[in-house]
Amino acid sequence: MTSPDVTASFDSMWSDLEPVGRVSSGGYRRFAWTLEDHALREWFAAECARRGLDLVEDRMGNQWAWWWEGPGSVDDAVAAGNPGVAIGSHLDSVPDGGAYDGPLGVVSALATVDGLRTAGVRPDRPLAVVNFVDEEGARFGVACAGSRVITGAMTAERALGLTDADGVSMSEALVSAGRDPQALGRDEETLGRVGAFVELHVEQGRGLVDLGVPVAVASDIWPHGRWRFDFPGEANHAGTTRLEDRRDAMLGYADLVLGARRTAQLRGCVATVGKVAVTPGGVNAIPSHVTGWLDSRGPDEGEVRATVEELRARAADFGATVTEESWTGTTRFDQPLSDRLRGVLGRDDALSVPVLGTGAGHDAGILAAAGVPSAMLFVRNPTGVSHSPEEHAERDDCHAGVVALTTCVTDLVTS
Amino acid sequence: MTSPDVTASFDSMWSDLEPVGRVSSGGYRRFAWTLEDHALREWFAAECARRGLDLVEDRMGNQWAWWWEGPGSVDDAVAAGNPGVAIGSHLDSVPDGGAYDGPLGVVSALATVDGLRTAGVRPDRPLAVVNFVDEEGARFGVACAGSRVITGAMTAERALGLTDADGVSMSEALVSAGRDPQALGRDEETLGRVGAFVELHVEQGRGLVDLGVPVAVASDIWPHGRWRFDFPGEANHAGTTRLEDRRDAMLGYADLVLGARRTAQLRGCVATVGKVAVTPGGVNAIPSHVTGWLDSRGPDEGEVRATVEELRARAADFGATVTEESWTGTTRFDQPLSDRLRGVLGRDDALSVPVLGTGAGHDAGILAAAGVPSAMLFVRNPTGVSHSPEEHAERDDCHAGVVALTTCVTDLVTS
Repeated sequence: MTSPDVTASFDSMWSDLEPVGRVSSGGYRRFAWTLEDHALREWFAAECARRGLDLVEDRMGNQWAWWWEGPGSVDDAVAAGNPGVAIGSHLDSVPDGGAYDGPLGVVSALATVDGLRTAGVRPDRPLAVVNFVDEEGARFGVACAGSRVITGAMTAERALGLTDADGVSMSEALVSAGRDPQALGRDEETLGRVGAFVELHVEQGRGLVDLGVPVAVASDIWPHGRWRFDFPGEANHAGTTRLEDRRDAMLGYADLVLGARRTAQLRGCVATVGKVAVTPGGVNAIPSHVTGWLDSRGPDEGEVRATVEELRARAADFGATVTEESWTGTTRFDQPLSDRLRGVLGRDDALSVPVLGTGAGHDAGILAAAGVPSAMLFVRNPTGVSHSPEEHAERDDCHAGVVALTTCVTDLVTS
Repeated sequence: MTSPDVTASFDSMWSDLEPVGRVSSGGYRRFAWTLEDHALREWFAAECARRGLDLVEDRMGNQWAWWWEGPGSVDDAVAAGNPGVAIGSHLDSVPDGGAYDGPLGVVSALATVDGLRTAGVRPDRPLAVVNFVDEEGARFGVACAGSRVITGAMTAERALGLTDADGVSMSEALVSAGRDPQALGRDEETLGRVGAFVELHVEQGRGLVDLGVPVAVASDIWPHGRWRFDFPGEANHAGTTRLEDRRDAMLGYADLVLGARRTAQLRGCVATVGKVAVTPGGVNAIPSHVTGWLDSRGPDEGEVRATVEELRARAADFGATVTEESWTGTTRFDQPLSDRLRGVLGRDDALSVPVLGTGAGHDAGILAAAGVPSAMLFVRNPTGVSHSPEEHAERDDCHAGVVALTTCVTDLVTS
């Protein structure tokens, strides 16, 4: 299906990206609207230009690179009832994230364009490669910020007011990056161009390892959310203040951490406290304020909700306030589109292509929830490790992912 | 005893210092070898120069400003069996610390020089005003680094290898500040000049409030130390990793926080976890490493030690390694010197001057442990709050502190 050129193209792009934002752990720190992010966006623009794609940024700065040879413009095709197919993912990372989460989907999408051209495919409808901004939410705390804003799942006002660890607001970060915060908002024009979105992503579990195959189609995304717990205290000297006179904000935080694990276990969910901020943060000062961030997900929406409510009640005993920073209910991917992908990939036996759910959020989930027919392909992850420098996919499986995506897109753009 | 000029001098110096390193909380961030610290050291040098004092830096960069009109040099006086008297404290702060912890002692010492001169006192032995560097250990984690290095309580090698939150070593920080890391070490010459050291400090408790008097003499410093607990984990995705597959470093940390409070309560000590560092620190990433710093103190050395050992055993269940970053046993201040101060301050009834112990470490404690006769004066703190923007002392009490210090020093240098 693909020529050696396509795998060479994949390998070459992969080498380009390897050093960008890599830190001493071997992992990556590629946060939205930082110098590393700018470098990645420029790299994406250059790869698109090299392929003659027309790069358009939407109201949030997500990059859409269109391949359409007419007749007419992309918008003419849309107006004629022939909306486009989009493929891609994101280039940003969590702190010390792996190389694959995000970039695998973007690089595979660009390689797919090469694969279609090598095979002589000329799309009957517009094809876009997309790079979503700020998928991980590592800097401003809300995941999938790029897709949430253009679908209206997050208002521009809320997005602009989010702040990073240094107190810089997204609005200020956008201005620093030479952008116009006023532009943000739901982007009907962009969404209207997309008749189908397919995101390829490294699997974040060991489902494909157990099944012994390299590629699967996604079924749904678990309900998931993030909550900020703010525990109040009173700063004082750690040596001279009697225990009974203290209001130590760290105690409530510690109770949250242990309570989250216990409650999630009982309710069949997962719950994690992976980020904490302490004021003043001195070894010999009693904490006057501790903020902990809870991430909770699970196959059952009611159980996830109940987990968070139990933790909220516990934290109230410590005077905490709890803020829901994000919440996404169960997201089912588009059934006809997913079935079509399974049919194309499985040829005679669609049932041979596995279907997997996931506990991770994705831009494809945000688009799906907004009514854009969306689907995902997962590529095997030999250890299941994700959001870690140890995240990995074998190169052969990456190439198999490109082949699968090329097969799917060929079908989607030529029938 | 003091003229209105002395209180005016105190007030003027206090106003000078107020803006330096103040942050939005109203507290201070004045960390060793930062721009704020440089500004404070320059201010100190200028105040000493204005008074005609001879400024000498020791092997660690602690600033000693000598007043000695002869005969001969300071070292001649020392050689003649007439060592000097030193007074002072430190100018650095904890994160979001108060204005008084440290600066009150330095400003009072400088005002005392003015007081002696106004009263026409000409010292019969050398008098130094000292500004110790890095007393709080806010940046590199070890309190009283300045006095520990010159007394040999901490080796130069250990000091130079300490790192701050950005991974900058003390050695690198010293080089950045234009200093020579090779100079560090026990400083016999400096210690030999000091026959007595008196540190005035704001009280870090409510002992003087209860007693209804503005000034006390210190008896001892509780045994105290700092321990770093390193909890290992494995970075992974917070949404896709089953609870039973996780190694979440935050769980052991939370257990330490709650265990520290409970164990200290049972053993009549205090224990605090006021600082934590999480890797990678993302909301949707399971922590691969958490470091927590424990501060523990109490009136009884054995109970403090037992508290730490219990916590060490608990943490071992989570695979943690525990490093003792500092430890100082019970420090009794010099009895003859302290009695003399009480006698001078109490005139006819030394027993009218209260004696208080403290859970806070001080440079005076480090010098005392190294054999330098040392004593402390405490100034009333109306709320007892310390290491917080709310730390306070009434201006009248500050002036009373200067009067007391002037009374003591007059006695020490003229008999």
